[in-house]
Amino acid sequence: MSEPAAYEPTERTVPTRSRERATYDRALVHAVLDEGYVCHLGFVRDGAPVVLPTLYGRVGERLYIHGSTGSRPLRMAGTTAPGLPVCVTVTHVDGLVLARSAFHHSLNYRSVVVYGIARQVTDPAERASALDALVDHVLPGRADDSRRADAKELAATAVLRLDLEEVSAKFRTGGPVDEPEDVSLPYWSGVLPVIGGYGTPVPADDLDPSISMPAYVTAR
Amino acid sequence: MSEPAAYEPTERTVPTRSRERATYDRALVHAVLDEGYVCHLGFVRDGAPVVLPTLYGRVGERLYIHGSTGSRPLRMAGTTAPGLPVCVTVTHVDGLVLARSAFHHSLNYRSVVVYGIARQVTDPAERASALDALVDHVLPGRADDSRRADAKELAATAVLRLDLEEVSAKFRTGGPVDEPEDVSLPYWSGVLPVIGGYGTPVPADDLDPSISMPAYVTAR
Repeated sequence: MSEPAAYEPTERTVPTRSRERATYDRALVHAVLDEGYVCHLGFVRDGAPVVLPTLYGRVGERLYIHGSTGSRPLRMAGTTAPGLPVCVTVTHVDGLVLARSAFHHSLNYRSVVVYGIARQVTDPAERASALDALVDHVLPGRADDSRRADAKELAATAVLRLDLEEVSAKFRTGGPVDEPEDVSLPYWSGVLPVIGGYGTPVPADDLDPSISMPAYVTAR
Repeated sequence: MSEPAAYEPTERTVPTRSRERATYDRALVHAVLDEGYVCHLGFVRDGAPVVLPTLYGRVGERLYIHGSTGSRPLRMAGTTAPGLPVCVTVTHVDGLVLARSAFHHSLNYRSVVVYGIARQVTDPAERASALDALVDHVLPGRADDSRRADAKELAATAVLRLDLEEVSAKFRTGGPVDEPEDVSLPYWSGVLPVIGGYGTPVPADDLDPSISMPAYVTAR
């Protein structure tokens, strides 16, 4: 079954401002999600908002989050309850945009916002594939190169699923946009790119020295 | 007036799990906040959570967020209304922690979560200093080296304040912690540091070539 090329905009995924920065393109949304691995998970507790950073993985049109069965959002989502309304946001910062005017300073960024109802996954096969996806999302290939969860660990782990249905992405790219009368002001203007990467891997103190560093680590 | 060295823990700033990772130390919280400039702002709209990335600045025990007067959370916070319950979260990822078991994979990170009521700032002097703080938080020194907002721009800009009262930080550092029986497994184990930084600045297309790059840009 092939999916439409874009998510259907809804009242809350259409921004009130800068609509030209919003996109619903499925491939772009997937690309932003796949480039990151930490999302900010929002939910409501006692009427007030809670935002927590957490890892995520994606399998097709499903986003997975995991945690201890004792953690608040995972308990709240339940297994038989109606689920937990959540908002999951993933943000990549690409550059600081320095305009001549303070007002037109900006960021280059790519972000995805997903609204929906998160529910605990109970099917053992889906739970296993979700946990693999969570590991492989961070370092592709690692799930096969580690000891998978045993029965006790699985019992202590809750997996939440959020279907990608009500989704939007926002982008800003390019240089500063100043008012015409500001261009001659004596202030430096441009973009300072923000870059990310990985440092030199640090083997565990007790690592068997005969185990060489795998390609999914060295290739980063 | 000197502040106590730590924020007072509350029911919602004490985590249900990994309590040893939580801290309320004021200086540590400030350091995490000052190292970043993008937060994830959570609020409740029509009973559902919303999480949006946005810039922030800090002045003492006050966090400032700004945006268009037309943007949803800023409109919702109002100027005379009781304010908007928010959760502001700032996260820095420091490393991927690869244990032998998938279960013990983790992240090294530092995060701060702030709960409170955000209110629009109306005092002109506080608004001006908040906007300077927002610019200088990203690149210290830039506020003085740009054209500050004029009356029209100020009228279009809403500034929200959130007092730092109900605040916690969470940290994880160090190498993987495996079960003793897993240490002999043939999987590479260790930490892959996550680093951030800045690339080569890109001057605006229309930049006067006689304007040299300022130190707050080159020093990054």
